[in-house]
Amino acid sequence: MPPRPRESSVPDAPAFQDLYPDDVAWCYGCGRLNPHGHHVRSSWDGDETVCTFTPEPFHTAIPGYVYGGLIASLIDCHATGTAAAAAARAEGRPLDSDPPLRFVTASLHVDYLRPTPLGPPLVVRGRVKEIRGRKVIVEATLSAGGEVCARGEVVAVRMPEALRARQGPPQSPVPRS
Amino acid sequence: MPPRPRESSVPDAPAFQDLYPDDVAWCYGCGRLNPHGHHVRSSWDGDETVCTFTPEPFHTAIPGYVYGGLIASLIDCHATGTAAAAAARAEGRPLDSDPPLRFVTASLHVDYLRPTPLGPPLVVRGRVKEIRGRKVIVEATLSAGGEVCARGEVVAVRMPEALRARQGPPQSPVPRS
Repeated sequence: MPPRPRESSVPDAPAFQDLYPDDVAWCYGCGRLNPHGHHVRSSWDGDETVCTFTPEPFHTAIPGYVYGGLIASLIDCHATGTAAAAAARAEGRPLDSDPPLRFVTASLHVDYLRPTPLGPPLVVRGRVKEIRGRKVIVEATLSAGGEVCARGEVVAVRMPEALRARQGPPQSPVPRS
Repeated sequence: MPPRPRESSVPDAPAFQDLYPDDVAWCYGCGRLNPHGHHVRSSWDGDETVCTFTPEPFHTAIPGYVYGGLIASLIDCHATGTAAAAAARAEGRPLDSDPPLRFVTASLHVDYLRPTPLGPPLVVRGRVKEIRGRKVIVEATLSAGGEVCARGEVVAVRMPEALRARQGPPQSPVPRS
Protein backbone atom coordinates (compact mmCIF):
# COMPACT_ATOMS: atom_id res chain seq x y z
CA MET A 1 0.00 0.00 0.00
CA PRO A 2 1.51 3.39 -0.87
CA PRO A 3 2.17 5.82 1.99
CA ARG A 4 -0.98 7.74 2.86
CA PRO A 5 -1.06 11.45 2.19
CA ARG A 6 -1.32 13.57 5.29
CA GLU A 7 -4.67 15.08 6.12
CA SER A 8 -5.64 17.85 8.43
CA SER A 9 -8.45 20.31 8.89
CA VAL A 10 -5.70 22.95 9.19
CA PRO A 11 -3.23 21.75 6.58
CA ASP A 12 -0.81 24.65 6.90
CA ALA A 13 -0.44 24.52 10.68
CA PRO A 14 1.87 21.97 12.27
CA ALA A 15 -0.13 19.21 13.87
CA PHE A 16 0.65 18.07 17.40
CA GLN A 17 2.08 14.87 15.93
CA ASP A 18 4.44 16.87 13.70
CA LEU A 19 6.15 18.02 16.88
CA TYR A 20 6.85 14.61 18.44
CA PRO A 21 10.58 13.76 18.63
CA ASP A 22 11.67 11.59 15.71
CA ASP A 23 12.36 8.50 17.81
CA VAL A 24 8.75 8.38 19.06
CA ALA A 25 7.06 9.42 15.81
CA TRP A 26 6.56 5.91 14.37
CA CYS A 27 3.10 5.11 15.72
CA TYR A 28 0.91 3.28 13.20
CA GLY A 29 -1.96 5.59 14.10
CA CYS A 30 -0.27 8.98 14.17
CA GLY A 31 3.45 8.71 13.57
CA ARG A 32 4.52 10.99 10.75
CA LEU A 33 7.49 8.66 10.07
CA ASN A 34 5.45 5.44 9.68
CA PRO A 35 4.82 5.12 5.94
CA HIS A 36 2.11 2.49 6.46
CA GLY A 37 0.09 4.27 9.12
CA HIS A 38 -3.01 6.44 9.39
CA HIS A 39 -1.14 9.72 9.95
CA VAL A 40 -3.69 11.17 12.35
CA ARG A 41 -3.01 14.91 12.63
CA SER A 42 -4.56 16.96 15.39
CA SER A 43 -4.63 20.65 16.16
CA TRP A 44 -6.26 23.17 18.48
CA ASP A 45 -9.63 24.71 17.70
CA GLY A 46 -10.11 27.07 20.62
CA ASP A 47 -10.26 24.96 23.76
CA GLU A 48 -11.07 21.86 21.78
CA THR A 49 -8.87 19.81 19.49
CA VAL A 50 -9.82 18.51 16.08
CA CYS A 51 -8.63 16.10 13.44
CA THR A 52 -10.15 15.04 10.15
CA PHE A 53 -9.62 11.66 8.56
CA THR A 54 -11.11 10.12 5.43
CA PRO A 55 -11.24 6.31 5.62
CA GLU A 56 -10.22 4.14 2.73
CA PRO A 57 -12.99 2.15 0.99
CA PHE A 58 -11.70 -1.04 2.60
CA HIS A 59 -12.00 0.34 6.15
CA THR A 60 -15.41 -1.26 6.34
CA ALA A 61 -17.35 -3.01 9.08
CA ILE A 62 -20.71 -4.17 7.78
CA PRO A 63 -20.53 -2.92 4.15
CA GLY A 64 -21.42 0.77 3.99
CA TYR A 65 -20.15 1.57 7.49
CA VAL A 66 -16.78 2.41 9.02
CA TYR A 67 -14.78 -0.25 10.83
CA GLY A 68 -15.07 0.19 14.61
CA GLY A 69 -11.41 -0.60 15.18
CA LEU A 70 -10.49 2.37 13.00
CA ILE A 71 -12.84 4.59 14.98
CA ALA A 72 -11.18 3.44 18.20
CA SER A 73 -7.75 4.06 16.67
CA LEU A 74 -8.61 7.61 15.58
CA ILE A 75 -10.03 8.48 18.99
CA ASP A 76 -6.99 6.94 20.70
CA CYS A 77 -4.33 8.79 18.72
CA HIS A 78 -6.23 12.06 18.69
CA ALA A 79 -6.58 11.82 22.46
CA THR A 80 -2.93 11.11 23.17
CA GLY A 81 -2.03 14.02 20.89
CA THR A 82 -4.52 16.20 22.74
CA ALA A 83 -2.98 15.12 26.03
CA ALA A 84 0.48 16.14 24.84
CA ALA A 85 -0.73 19.51 23.59
CA ALA A 86 -2.70 20.15 26.77
CA ALA A 87 0.32 19.30 28.92
CA ALA A 88 2.39 21.75 26.89
CA ARG A 89 -0.22 24.48 27.42
CA ALA A 90 -0.44 23.69 31.12
CA GLU A 91 3.33 23.88 31.49
CA GLY A 92 3.55 27.03 29.39
CA ARG A 93 6.08 25.63 26.93
CA PRO A 94 6.12 24.50 23.31
CA LEU A 95 5.04 20.94 22.54
CA ASP A 96 8.41 20.24 20.92
CA SER A 97 10.49 21.39 23.89
CA ASP A 98 12.41 19.12 26.27
CA PRO A 99 11.66 16.95 28.12
CA PRO A 100 9.42 15.45 25.43
CA LEU A 101 5.66 15.52 25.93
CA ARG A 102 4.63 12.13 24.56
CA PHE A 103 1.65 10.27 25.98
CA VAL A 104 0.58 6.64 25.83
CA THR A 105 -2.83 5.12 26.48
CA ALA A 106 -3.72 3.63 29.85
CA SER A 107 -7.35 3.01 28.93
CA LEU A 108 -9.68 3.56 26.00
CA HIS A 109 -13.46 3.52 26.02
CA VAL A 110 -15.64 3.96 22.95
CA ASP A 111 -19.43 4.01 22.75
CA TYR A 112 -20.66 3.38 19.22
CA LEU A 113 -23.84 5.45 19.17
CA ARG A 114 -24.88 4.69 15.61
CA PRO A 115 -23.31 3.11 12.53
CA THR A 116 -20.76 5.49 10.98
CA PRO A 117 -21.32 5.89 7.23
CA LEU A 118 -18.27 5.02 5.12
CA GLY A 119 -17.50 7.79 2.66
CA PRO A 120 -17.50 11.27 4.19
CA PRO A 121 -14.55 12.61 6.18
CA LEU A 122 -14.66 11.75 9.87
CA VAL A 123 -14.14 14.58 12.32
CA VAL A 124 -12.76 13.78 15.76
CA ARG A 125 -13.04 16.47 18.40
CA GLY A 126 -11.30 16.26 21.76
CA ARG A 127 -11.73 18.05 25.07
CA VAL A 128 -9.55 17.79 28.15
CA LYS A 129 -11.60 16.55 31.08
CA GLU A 130 -8.80 16.43 33.63
CA ILE A 131 -5.06 16.98 33.94
CA ARG A 132 -3.40 15.61 37.04
CA GLY A 133 0.29 14.86 37.39
CA ARG A 134 1.35 12.66 34.49
CA LYS A 135 -2.24 11.77 33.58
CA VAL A 136 -4.62 13.51 31.18
CA ILE A 137 -8.20 12.36 30.60
CA VAL A 138 -9.58 13.30 27.19
CA GLU A 139 -13.17 13.06 25.98
CA ALA A 140 -13.78 12.78 22.25
CA THR A 141 -16.54 12.61 19.71
CA LEU A 142 -16.35 11.22 16.20
CA SER A 143 -18.75 12.65 13.63
CA ALA A 144 -19.64 11.96 10.01
CA GLY A 145 -21.69 14.41 7.99
CA GLY A 146 -22.22 16.55 11.09
CA GLU A 147 -23.73 13.73 13.14
CA VAL A 148 -21.97 12.33 16.20
CA CYS A 149 -21.56 8.58 15.64
CA ALA A 150 -19.22 7.63 18.51
CA ARG A 151 -18.04 9.00 21.83
CA GLY A 152 -14.80 8.08 23.52
CA GLU A 153 -12.80 8.63 26.66
CA VAL A 154 -9.08 8.05 26.91
CA VAL A 155 -6.86 8.04 29.96
CA ALA A 156 -3.45 9.08 28.66
CA VAL A 157 -0.25 9.01 30.70
CA ARG A 158 3.16 10.54 30.08
CA MET A 159 5.36 7.96 28.43
CA PRO A 160 7.82 6.53 30.94
CA GLU A 161 11.39 7.30 29.92
CA ALA A 162 12.22 3.61 30.35
CA LEU A 163 9.92 2.82 27.45
CA ARG A 164 11.86 5.15 25.22
CA ALA A 165 15.18 3.80 26.43
CA ARG A 166 14.29 0.21 25.48
CA GLN A 167 13.56 0.92 21.87
CA GLY A 168 15.82 0.15 18.93
CA PRO A 169 16.77 2.70 16.31
CA PRO A 170 13.72 4.58 15.04
CA GLN A 171 13.67 3.03 11.62
CA SER A 172 14.06 -0.55 12.79
CA PRO A 173 10.39 -1.54 13.19
CA VAL A 174 9.27 -0.17 9.85
CA PRO A 175 10.30 -1.63 6.52
CA ARG A 176 11.50 1.24 4.37
CA SER A 177 10.64 -0.32 1.03
CA MET B 1 0.02 -4.37 0.50
CA PRO B 2 -0.62 -7.99 -0.46
CA PRO B 3 -3.55 -9.80 1.16
CA ARG B 4 -2.57 -11.14 4.58
CA PRO B 5 -2.41 -14.89 5.07
CA ARG B 6 -4.97 -16.24 7.48
CA GLU B 7 -3.82 -17.17 10.95
CA SER B 8 -5.42 -19.27 13.60
CA SER B 9 -4.38 -21.25 16.63
CA VAL B 10 -6.53 -24.07 15.17
CA PRO B 11 -5.76 -23.71 11.47
CA ASP B 12 -7.76 -26.73 10.31
CA ALA B 13 -10.99 -25.87 12.10
CA PRO B 14 -13.34 -23.29 10.63
CA ALA B 15 -13.14 -20.04 12.55
CA PHE B 16 -16.31 -18.28 13.67
CA GLN B 17 -15.61 -15.65 11.03
CA ASP B 18 -15.44 -18.31 8.31
CA LEU B 19 -19.13 -18.93 8.97
CA TYR B 20 -20.41 -15.37 8.56
CA PRO B 21 -22.66 -14.91 5.52
CA ASP B 22 -20.75 -13.54 2.54
CA ASP B 23 -22.50 -10.19 2.51
CA VAL B 24 -21.36 -9.40 6.07
CA ALA B 25 -17.87 -10.91 5.82
CA TRP B 26 -16.06 -7.77 4.66
CA CYS B 27 -14.98 -6.33 8.00
CA TYR B 28 -11.48 -4.85 7.95
CA GLY B 29 -10.75 -6.59 11.24
CA CYS B 30 -12.18 -10.04 10.66
CA GLY B 31 -13.87 -10.32 7.27
CA ARG B 32 -12.50 -13.25 5.32
CA LEU B 33 -13.45 -11.45 2.07
CA ASN B 34 -11.60 -8.20 2.81
CA PRO B 35 -8.20 -8.60 1.13
CA HIS B 36 -6.71 -5.64 3.04
CA GLY B 37 -7.83 -6.59 6.54
CA HIS B 38 -6.46 -8.30 9.63
CA HIS B 39 -8.37 -11.58 9.14
CA VAL B 40 -8.94 -12.18 12.83
CA ARG B 41 -9.98 -15.84 13.24
CA SER B 42 -11.50 -17.07 16.48
CA SER B 43 -12.47 -20.50 17.76
CA TRP B 44 -13.64 -22.26 20.90
CA ASP B 45 -11.19 -23.55 23.48
CA GLY B 46 -13.50 -25.17 26.01
CA ASP B 47 -15.68 -22.43 27.44
CA GLU B 48 -13.29 -19.75 26.30
CA THR B 49 -12.53 -18.50 22.83
CA VAL B 50 -9.11 -17.86 21.41
CA CYS B 51 -7.44 -16.20 18.46
CA THR B 52 -3.80 -15.70 17.59
CA PHE B 53 -2.46 -12.82 15.56
CA THR B 54 1.09 -11.83 14.66
CA PRO B 55 1.41 -8.07 14.08
CA GLU B 56 3.36 -6.69 11.17
CA PRO B 57 6.60 -4.83 11.99
CA PHE B 58 4.89 -1.53 11.17
CA HIS B 59 2.09 -2.08 13.70
CA THR B 60 4.13 -0.12 16.19
CA ALA B 61 3.28 2.38 18.92
CA ILE B 62 6.44 3.59 20.62
CA PRO B 63 9.08 1.57 18.70
CA GLY B 64 9.35 -1.95 20.10
CA TYR B 65 5.71 -2.10 21.23
CA VAL B 66 2.40 -2.96 19.58
CA TYR B 67 0.05 -0.22 18.43
CA GLY B 68 -2.84 0.20 20.88
CA GLY B 69 -5.37 0.68 18.10
CA LEU B 70 -4.49 -2.77 16.76
CA ILE B 71 -4.92 -4.24 20.24
CA ALA B 72 -8.35 -2.61 20.47
CA SER B 73 -9.23 -3.92 17.00
CA LEU B 74 -8.23 -7.51 17.83
CA ILE B 75 -10.22 -7.48 21.07
CA ASP B 76 -13.21 -5.94 19.26
CA CYS B 77 -13.40 -8.46 16.41
CA HIS B 78 -12.60 -11.43 18.62
CA ALA B 79 -15.38 -10.36 20.97
CA THR B 80 -18.03 -9.91 18.30
CA GLY B 81 -17.07 -13.33 16.93
CA THR B 82 -17.30 -14.78 20.41
CA ALA B 83 -20.73 -13.19 20.81
CA ALA B 84 -21.94 -14.81 17.59
CA ALA B 85 -20.59 -18.23 18.57
CA ALA B 86 -22.03 -17.95 22.07
CA ALA B 87 -25.44 -17.00 20.68
CA ALA B 88 -25.33 -20.04 18.40
CA ARG B 89 -24.50 -22.28 21.36
CA ALA B 90 -27.24 -20.71 23.46
CA GLU B 91 -29.79 -21.21 20.69
CA GLY B 92 -28.57 -24.75 20.00
CA ARG B 93 -27.96 -24.19 16.32
CA PRO B 94 -24.95 -23.87 13.99
CA LEU B 95 -23.32 -20.47 13.66
CA ASP B 96 -23.93 -20.47 9.92
CA SER B 97 -27.67 -21.20 10.17
CA ASP B 98 -30.46 -18.70 9.49
CA PRO B 99 -31.26 -16.10 10.68
CA PRO B 100 -27.61 -14.97 10.63
CA LEU B 101 -25.81 -14.53 13.92
CA ARG B 102 -23.74 -11.44 13.25
CA PHE B 103 -22.92 -9.00 16.03
CA VAL B 104 -21.76 -5.38 16.03
CA THR B 105 -20.10 -3.40 18.79
CA ALA B 106 -22.10 -1.14 21.09
CA SER B 107 -19.16 -0.33 23.34
CA LEU B 108 -15.51 -1.24 23.67
CA HIS B 109 -13.28 -0.78 26.69
CA VAL B 110 -9.58 -1.62 26.81
CA ASP B 111 -7.19 -1.31 29.75
CA TYR B 112 -3.57 -1.31 28.62
CA LEU B 113 -1.88 -2.99 31.57
CA ARG B 114 1.66 -2.88 30.24
CA PRO B 115 3.37 -2.19 26.91
CA THR B 116 2.86 -5.10 24.52
CA PRO B 117 6.13 -6.23 22.94
CA LEU B 118 6.11 -6.16 19.14
CA GLY B 119 7.32 -9.46 17.72
CA PRO B 120 5.72 -12.51 19.33
CA PRO B 121 2.25 -13.71 18.36
CA LEU B 122 -0.55 -12.08 20.33
CA VAL B 123 -3.12 -14.37 21.90
CA VAL B 124 -6.60 -13.01 22.57
CA ARG B 125 -8.84 -15.04 24.85
CA GLY B 126 -12.55 -14.30 25.29
CA ARG B 127 -15.12 -15.29 27.87
CA VAL B 128 -18.84 -14.61 27.81
CA LYS B 129 -19.85 -12.55 30.82
CA GLU B 130 -23.52 -12.20 29.99
CA ILE B 131 -26.03 -13.08 27.29
CA ARG B 132 -29.36 -11.29 27.42
CA GLY B 133 -31.72 -10.91 24.49
CA ARG B 134 -29.80 -9.48 21.55
CA LYS B 135 -26.86 -8.42 23.73
CA VAL B 136 -23.72 -10.36 24.65
CA ILE B 137 -21.02 -8.97 26.95
CA VAL B 138 -17.58 -10.45 26.34
CA GLU B 139 -14.46 -10.09 28.49
CA ALA B 140 -11.08 -10.54 26.82
CA THR B 141 -7.39 -10.63 27.56
CA LEU B 142 -4.56 -10.04 25.14
CA SER B 143 -1.23 -11.71 25.92
CA ALA B 144 2.26 -11.71 24.45
CA GLY B 145 4.82 -14.29 25.47
CA GLY B 146 2.42 -15.65 28.08
CA GLU B 147 1.97 -12.31 29.85
CA VAL B 148 -1.37 -10.49 29.86
CA CYS B 149 -0.74 -7.03 28.42
CA ALA B 150 -4.32 -5.75 27.95
CA ARG B 151 -7.82 -6.49 29.17
CA GLY B 152 -10.99 -5.60 27.34
CA GLU B 153 -14.74 -5.68 27.63
CA VAL B 154 -17.06 -5.47 24.66
CA VAL B 155 -20.82 -5.05 24.60
CA ALA B 156 -21.92 -6.71 21.37
CA VAL B 157 -25.42 -6.56 19.94
CA ARG B 158 -27.11 -8.56 17.19
CA MET B 159 -26.80 -6.64 13.97
CA PRO B 160 -30.11 -4.99 13.10
CA GLU B 161 -31.50 -6.35 9.84
CA ALA B 162 -31.93 -2.76 8.63
CA LEU B 163 -28.16 -2.36 8.66
CA ARG B 164 -27.79 -5.30 6.35
CA ALA B 165 -30.59 -4.11 4.10
CA ARG B 166 -28.92 -0.74 3.53
CA GLN B 167 -25.68 -2.11 2.22
CA GLY B 168 -24.58 -2.20 -1.39
CA PRO B 169 -23.30 -5.32 -3.09
CA PRO B 170 -20.64 -7.03 -0.97
CA GLN B 171 -17.72 -6.22 -3.19
CA SER B 172 -18.54 -2.54 -3.57
CA PRO B 173 -16.57 -1.13 -0.61
CA VAL B 174 -13.41 -3.09 -1.36
CA PRO B 175 -11.22 -2.42 -4.37
CA ARG B 176 -10.55 -5.78 -6.02
CA SER B 177 -7.20 -4.92 -7.54
